[in-house]
Amino acid sequence: MAAAPAPNPAYGALTDQGKSTNIVWHHSTVTRESRAHQRGHRSAILWFTGLSGSGKSTLANAVNSALFEQGLACYVLDGDNIRHGLCTDLGFSDADRVENIRRIGEVAKLFLDAGVVVLTAFVSPFQADRERVRALVPAGDFIEIHCAADLSVCEERDTKGLYAKARAGVIKEFTGISSPYEAPESPELRVDTGHAELEGCVAQVLSFLDANGIIPAAS
Amino acid sequence: MAAAPAPNPAYGALTDQGKSTNIVWHHSTVTRESRAHQRGHRSAILWFTGLSGSGKSTLANAVNSALFEQGLACYVLDGDNIRHGLCTDLGFSDADRVENIRRIGEVAKLFLDAGVVVLTAFVSPFQADRERVRALVPAGDFIEIHCAADLSVCEERDTKGLYAKARAGVIKEFTGISSPYEAPESPELRVDTGHAELEGCVAQVLSFLDANGIIPAAS
Repeated sequence: MAAAPAPNPAYGALTDQGKSTNIVWHHSTVTRESRAHQRGHRSAILWFTGLSGSGKSTLANAVNSALFEQGLACYVLDGDNIRHGLCTDLGFSDADRVENIRRIGEVAKLFLDAGVVVLTAFVSPFQADRERVRALVPAGDFIEIHCAADLSVCEERDTKGLYAKARAGVIKEFTGISSPYEAPESPELRVDTGHAELEGCVAQVLSFLDANGIIPAAS
Repeated sequence: MAAAPAPNPAYGALTDQGKSTNIVWHHSTVTRESRAHQRGHRSAILWFTGLSGSGKSTLANAVNSALFEQGLACYVLDGDNIRHGLCTDLGFSDADRVENIRRIGEVAKLFLDAGVVVLTAFVSPFQADRERVRALVPAGDFIEIHCAADLSVCEERDTKGLYAKARAGVIKEFTGISSPYEAPESPELRVDTGHAELEGCVAQVLSFLDANGIIPAAS
């Protein structure tokens, strides 16, 4: 909790509007900049992309935990809280996949505006979809993180049993098997989630955020 | 900024997983409860509903400013950041209006989970739509706030010139003129935004949040 705050000039000024019942109420908005100043860190979108089983959600959650332990505002968007909520009306057609990523991008933009480091963990296989999200926000606020595990490693893990189903033809158009994965050409970060230990991957992401002035160096 | 944090046991434990390249990475998630504990306040959805011109967005932003000055996590969703973003594909048909409120509810739920007091400012004229949002979250987390300004006051203000256009028939199905507004029957709060001063309305909302254990009393 912050200490007792100084009065907000914008808010205090509202008392000067008098007692007319017909006043035009003025907006007092909290800006992204004022949030960053109060919290001591910038916000950003950390967009984790990679094959199913590459470790996107695990890495995003581990980074999120590390940020939380530093007292920073952070939140993860992933299949668990998006697919059955905001995007429950969407299926897996091409158009629905595009709309799915579009909505996630727009929600991430809201969290960015709210001063939160928002981490998204979706396969998001198509470069064009990711570039549309990048274009939604100012340069430097969209940080593309490629979870670069080889298909063979992901398939061997097969944590959700999806690769087996895809090989058996039960799941159609499965990324990496029957639908392409367009690896980012110039991601801000590429993390070897196929072979490196989780702790090292987390440190790599945190180091990037620190070096780019988004978060303060961990104490 | 928080002081130097204690180690997170869940995060630290990850180092015990060894060097296998085939480990199943474990999730470490930050819960809503841990966020509330760290920040010293609960999250909630403050759902402002009322006629166009009733002062929803102004009141929501003023409450947001007051919460921010107390150092609390808070954010406003309103037409400015939703209509041209997440809901840019939606028009004003009945189905699109329902979908608009549904998406806003789902996004509000994400902010709730992220530990943020989220304030929404939309006409949201239909009780059924509002009840669907209420049903998305645990009891007590959805706080319906009726901005109860009379139509005559809102129309006299006509801050956006919309009532004039509605009367002239330029805008069809305008809430209050040619489309019904279903006032909440049992809102958590009813605020007289037609006649009361803004500062008093803000105090009424903050008092409710304090009394219900969502935020600490202002220092």
